[in-house]
Order: sequence, then C-alpha cells, then structure tokens
Amino acid sequence: MNKITTNYLILGANASGLSAAVRILKSDKQAKITVLEKSDVVSFGSCGIPYYVAGEFDDINQMTARPLEDFIKLGIDVRLFHTAIGLDPLNKQVTAHNGNTNQSVSLAYDKLFIAVGASPTTPPIKGLAAKNIHTMHSKADAITILNLLPEIQHVVIIGAGFIGMEAAEAFSEQGKNVTVIEFAERVLARTFDAEITPQVEDALQRHSVALQLNESVLEIKHENGAAHSVLTNKDEYPADLVIVATGFKPNTEFLRNTDIKLSKEGAIIIDDQCKTNLPDIYAAGDCATVPHKISGNVYIPLATSANKLGRIAGDVMAGKDSRFIGTLGSSGVRVFDVEAGRTGITEEEAKQLGIDYGTVVIKDKNQTDYVPGQSDMWVKLIYEQQSRKLLGGQVCGRYLGGAVHRVDALAVAVYSGLTVEELGFMDFIYAPPFARTWEILNIAGNVAK
Amino acid sequence: MNKITTNYLILGANASGLSAAVRILKSDKQAKITVLEKSDVVSFGSCGIPYYVAGEFDDINQMTARPLEDFIKLGIDVRLFHTAIGLDPLNKQVTAHNGNTNQSVSLAYDKLFIAVGASPTTPPIKGLAAKNIHTMHSKADAITILNLLPEIQHVVIIGAGFIGMEAAEAFSEQGKNVTVIEFAERVLARTFDAEITPQVEDALQRHSVALQLNESVLEIKHENGAAHSVLTNKDEYPADLVIVATGFKPNTEFLRNTDIKLSKEGAIIIDDQCKTNLPDIYAAGDCATVPHKISGNVYIPLATSANKLGRIAGDVMAGKDSRFIGTLGSSGVRVFDVEAGRTGITEEEAKQLGIDYGTVVIKDKNQTDYVPGQSDMWVKLIYEQQSRKLLGGQVCGRYLGGAVHRVDALAVAVYSGLTVEELGFMDFIYAPPFARTWEILNIAGNVAK
Repeated sequence: MNKITTNYLILGANASGLSAAVRILKSDKQAKITVLEKSDVVSFGSCGIPYYVAGEFDDINQMTARPLEDFIKLGIDVRLFHTAIGLDPLNKQVTAHNGNTNQSVSLAYDKLFIAVGASPTTPPIKGLAAKNIHTMHSKADAITILNLLPEIQHVVIIGAGFIGMEAAEAFSEQGKNVTVIEFAERVLARTFDAEITPQVEDALQRHSVALQLNESVLEIKHENGAAHSVLTNKDEYPADLVIVATGFKPNTEFLRNTDIKLSKEGAIIIDDQCKTNLPDIYAAGDCATVPHKISGNVYIPLATSANKLGRIAGDVMAGKDSRFIGTLGSSGVRVFDVEAGRTGITEEEAKQLGIDYGTVVIKDKNQTDYVPGQSDMWVKLIYEQQSRKLLGGQVCGRYLGGAVHRVDALAVAVYSGLTVEELGFMDFIYAPPFARTWEILNIAGNVAK
Repeated sequence: MNKITTNYLILGANASGLSAAVRILKSDKQAKITVLEKSDVVSFGSCGIPYYVAGEFDDINQMTARPLEDFIKLGIDVRLFHTAIGLDPLNKQVTAHNGNTNQSVSLAYDKLFIAVGASPTTPPIKGLAAKNIHTMHSKADAITILNLLPEIQHVVIIGAGFIGMEAAEAFSEQGKNVTVIEFAERVLARTFDAEITPQVEDALQRHSVALQLNESVLEIKHENGAAHSVLTNKDEYPADLVIVATGFKPNTEFLRNTDIKLSKEGAIIIDDQCKTNLPDIYAAGDCATVPHKISGNVYIPLATSANKLGRIAGDVMAGKDSRFIGTLGSSGVRVFDVEAGRTGITEEEAKQLGIDYGTVVIKDKNQTDYVPGQSDMWVKLIYEQQSRKLLGGQVCGRYLGGAVHRVDALAVAVYSGLTVEELGFMDFIYAPPFARTWEILNIAGNVAK
C-alpha cells in the first residue's frame, strides 16, 4: 500500500491540539504532524493555578497533563515559540512568527487544526500595566504571582466569575486581605441564577473576603511604578496585587483577513465534527464555538469540551466519522466550604433563547439528619413548559455534600430529555450517609407544577 | 355532589402504607382510611439502626419519618397492634388479630393496600433463640442492642450484606471486636460484582474486622441461657452478641390461602400501578415485587421503592392514572472510609437474564492530584453488546470521593438507554476539587470496546 502521507498542521499545544495529535496517530500511522506553540509550555492545565497559588501543591509540573517528551517520542514535531500570524486557505499555508529567530516562516498543510485557545480580556481601565497586575492564565502568571506572595497583603480581584472566585479562596488561604470587585449585582452572574449565588456570596463573607458588587473599576493607581490602589465608581481599595479575571477572548486575530466564519465573540464557528466553513480547516477549544445540546452553537470555553472536541477533531481529520454529542455547559466550582454546579441552560439563558419554560427552586437537605454531614442544599431546575423536559439544573451546598456530582445526574437527564416527572421518580441511591429516601433531586422533580 | 365515601384499608404503617394514605387524601377528600399496624411503631426507617448503634445520634425518634399524631390529625384511623391474619377477597374482608384485646376482628374494605413489609430471615441454625441474638430491623432491636452494648466485647455478625456491613462498622466504632461470617466467597455478593467488593473487604480488614468468608454457621452455642460462641464449619468464635443479617422474607404468610399471586420469594406480584391480580387489592413495599426497568418484576426490598410505590398506590386507588417508571435497584453503602453504589443490573444478573453483554472495569482517580482529596476509584459498566446501551454500573472509592453520587448519573444513563459511547462524551462537570477533565465515567465509557 502506497498511502500518501498526510501533512497535519496543528496550531496550539494544549488540551485540544495535543488530544487531536495523539488521536490522529491512532487512525493514521503515516501521519506527519506539526504542532506550533506560541510559548514553551505545552499541555498545561491552567485550572490548577488557583490551587497552586493557594499553596495546595508545590510542583508546578503537576499542572502539565503530559510532558513534551511524550509527544516528541510519538514522532510529533512540536515547534515552540511559534505564533500563527496568518492563514492562506487557498494555498493551504500558515504563516507563523518564530520567536527563536524572530523571523516569519511559512508552513503548508493538507489538514489544519486551529486550537490556539483564548486570552484573558483586559477591561478598558487606566493603569492596567504594572508588574503587580496579573491575570491567572499562564504558567508564567502562576510563577510570578507565587513569587510576589511574600511581599503582598492586599489583593484586589477584578471579576467574580469562576477564576475570580477561586482566586479569592486561594489568596484568602494564603492569609491575604482579599477584595473582589464585580460590575454585576452578584457573583457568577453569567453561569448561575440568582437563587444559587447567594450561597457562594455567603461563603466569601464568612471567610472575610470583601465583596463589592455593582461596582466598576475606573482606574488602577500607581506609585513607584507599581499598582497601589484600585479606584472604582464608589471607593478606592489598597492593592499590593491586582488580579484581572474578567473573561476570555478567542485568539483569532490572525484570522481576521480570511473568510473563516467567526461568532460574535470572535470564536471560530465549528460543527459537530470540528469543521469550519473552509475546506480542510478544523478548530476546537477556547478559540472556537461548541455545539450545545440545547442552545445551538455557543462560545463556552471549558477544558472539558476542549479535550473532547480535540479528540473528535483528530478522529475526523484522520478519516473517521466521529461526531460530538454536544456540550451542556456543565461546570462547577468550590468556594471555600461551598460547592456549586450547573448543567444545561440557566433561567437567564432560557429567557434569552425565548423558550417557554418553568422553574423549580427548593432548599432541602443533602442526607439524613442522623449521620454526621447533613447540610443545606439548593436545587434549581429549568424545564420546557410544554414537554416538561429538563433544560437545565443548578445545585449548591456544603463542600463534599454532593452538590456538584448531583449535577452530573442532571446532565444526563438534560441530555436524555428526561421530564421533571421522571426525575421525580428516578431511582437514585438512598443510604443514610448520602441521601434521604426521597432524594433532593426527586423532590425537586415532584415539586415542579 | 353526593359522592359515595370509599373505604380504604391499609395494612402496615411504614413507608409504603403511610405514603399511600397521605396521597389518597390529596385526591379523595372524602376518603375513609383505616391503617392496621402490627406493632406500636409507625413510619419507622430501620436504615438508621446501624448509625444509632454506632452512637452517631442519641434520639431514637430521629428514625421516625413522621410522627403518628400527624396521621391522626389528617383523619387517618391508625390501629396499633393489629396484625392481618386473613384475607377474603370475595367478600372484601380482612381478618386481623387485635393485640390489645387478644381477639380477632373483621374489617371490610372497598380498596385494600397491602404494605405489611418483610421480616428478617432466620437461617436454619441450632440455638438461634437467646436474649443476645438479634436482628437489626425493628425499633425494639435498636433499643435492646444499645442496652446490651456496655456488657459486650465480642460481636459476631452472620451475613455480609448491606446490614451486615453497616453493623460491622457500627460495632467497630463502639470499640467491639467484630467478626463477620459469610457463606459466600465475598461480601455484598448479591449486590456487587467481584471487582468492586475487594475494596469493601479491604476497608473491613484495615479496621480490624475479622472477615470469615466461605464459611457456614452450624450452631450458636449457649451458656447460662445466652449465646456465648458461634460454631461454623471451620472454627468457633466467641460471641457476647450475635447479629443475624441474612436477608428478608415478605410478610405474606397470611395470604397463602388466597389466590393472590406471589413471586418465588413470596412477594406479592404487582404491576406499575401497584395492582395485584385480585380486584381492588394493591400492594407495595418490602412485601411486594417491584417493576424493574431492565429485569422485569423483581423482589428488591428497598426504602426508596417503598416510598415511591406507596405514593403511586395512593394515587391509583384514589382514581389517578399514575404509573411507576421502574426501579433500577440503585443502592449504596458506606463501610468505614469506603463508599460503593450500584444501579441497573450487575454482570451476575446479566448472566442470569441471559443477556448478551459486555463489561468494562477501570481503576482511576476521582479528581485532580493537586487538590487535597484525590483517591482511587473503581468503575464497572455492564452494557448490552449489540445496542451498546448501558445496563448497569457500579462505582466504589473513598468516602466523600463521589462514588455513590456518580452512580446517580449512571442511574439516569441506564434509565435513558444511553450508550457507552454517549457516556464517554457526556458533559460531566470538571473542576479540580471534583473530577479530572476526562471524568472517570467518561473514561469508563470510552474504554468499552
């Protein structure tokens, strides 16, 4: 068999890119795979940074899912410090900047996989550049922040999303004075509905984090070349360190001059096989949209989808007919002694989608009262009014009380189109240390009118 | 409206019986409800007994789901010390023994609900009657055992099912020397497959419980009117207290002379509306079978089904068209620092049902390594070979590591007919304190060949 070698070019050496590379090799033994990575860090899981900063582990390499050597051994040509700066879909060529030589290089491809990720957004604030103002995204961020820790006392975090919340916990565990400033009226406003977030806010307050809601940052004031306070429309907060955690934008600037279709967020629009609108060009991860089981094609940058879609992309590029079953936007967080998870769509999202929906919110207990560990738990369900099918669920409760893993059950329920009535009678496990005979998810289902 | 009053007779005042009574009142405001209870204990949850014996709580009333007064207030005529001893379906009459007067009474019904529960089986062993030989089933058992505690050191438990395991933990926590004797070659042999139970056995051994497998009890030897040792086919064990935990049999002896259909275990056969084969006679709970989503109509006495079916029975008797969606035999247990759960059918059960099945067993981790709390986790999946649909799942791991609640997700998956491939890409929550980006349930699904 004289099979022609296919030339795969992958942009980005993290979750999606390397998952695809490994997966291609499973199906196409003759594959020639080149991976361009803009930094010298590969296969890095930035979700570990808050725990690294909190001092929960010391070896920064624990955040590396798989070392570079593994990929080199597989015959994958990983080129570090190579940043894609242009794409010519017609001639099937990518232009990259080689940071080692400071020159541009041109690379041809038969199949291209764009997995260049996203970067933290920087809000329009004066004085954002200073050595003690950081995002929590890269390995370099993690190292720099850890080095700064001994000299700082006051940390101001801008943004109360997942990273802002995890950062608040981390710096608080390091004994710092933490202030979180959030433009919205509550924390995690984009991922959870208003009945769930008060429990997270309560956890912050019980752990002495100053939470400033409905407040916008105007300027970061400097002194001797470093940030020393954060000025908002309401007050001024001393800051030895400022963490900017206001969201992400896809790294798709280099595609602006091509015909590749981007979403309103600038994410590459892909289908359930990671195909873009251009031939032989695939994309996935934080730079791309993700097919959602309920809300169509959305931009939700999450490590879970990046890994799963990278695998799908690798399969498809190598000729298999794999298809992504869809995301549910499932995500969760621990904030001190509280955990919360969500799946499917929130009530806010149901409104935006114009769906005729119903909701249930209950507060109950996670388990029997006679085994140590009983705590309060909140469940919110969103369901389609007509069909009674679940569209989403959110659960919140004490850490280790089972809130987040209960959402996993709701994820399967939303995926499967379970009705609230079926949820009400679903045979969940009962044993005194884990639940009550009428499990809280059953009760939520049965309360739905 | 001159609606005729319906005369409901309910036998048994626990989970099923009282759920039905309350539910009838929701739909039939004119209902006349009489409940006969053989003891003076109502609405008692015996699953709490091991935790009561372990000293985890002091107030025995915490095991009462709802006090008798509540039901009386609702106008329900609860008659204590009334044991059903006969049924005349033709004349629609039940004969009961009134323990207060020591006389027989006859009660007519329009609709009868049999929820008389089950009793612990007593194996064919010599010397079973003594004041220090007990089951762990009734409120009286709980009180007697707790009173005996100060005088005992050696506890021998016959049977390594759920109750045997929970009892081993309980007495061990009270500082007793505990020996468990089991006829089968492993613990929990009827509920879990052989890949899961070694972790439970390991927990017992790490907590100094002597586990004697493949061993049958021949005789309980007495001294001064009390048991003082347990003789098996292999050895003799000193015993100040013997706990018999060898299973349950439905309390259906009083129905032997009727035409009511019973299963091989003696359980009343019901449909998904709790109807028996006789007109106007309904049954549910530990005295009846339960419609199973996969294995037909089975005898699995569990509090969860008893509650759910009691509610269905109440609805149906009062004229509603409620139907039970089916049990999955979901159950779980904590044994010291290990938790395990199962749903659907085991590999053993798949064999017995003659299903063409496949299995996956993996050992992996419950969460990231860099947040405290990482531990080993075992997942077993059973799926239909042809359709790839999940038939069952078992998960086991460290207590509070999320094993049992992960089974809740598998329960929905089995119920919904999810394939292993869908499980492999299901959007479960990832956050460092709860899972890894490829959640263990995803991995299990993807490993299935």
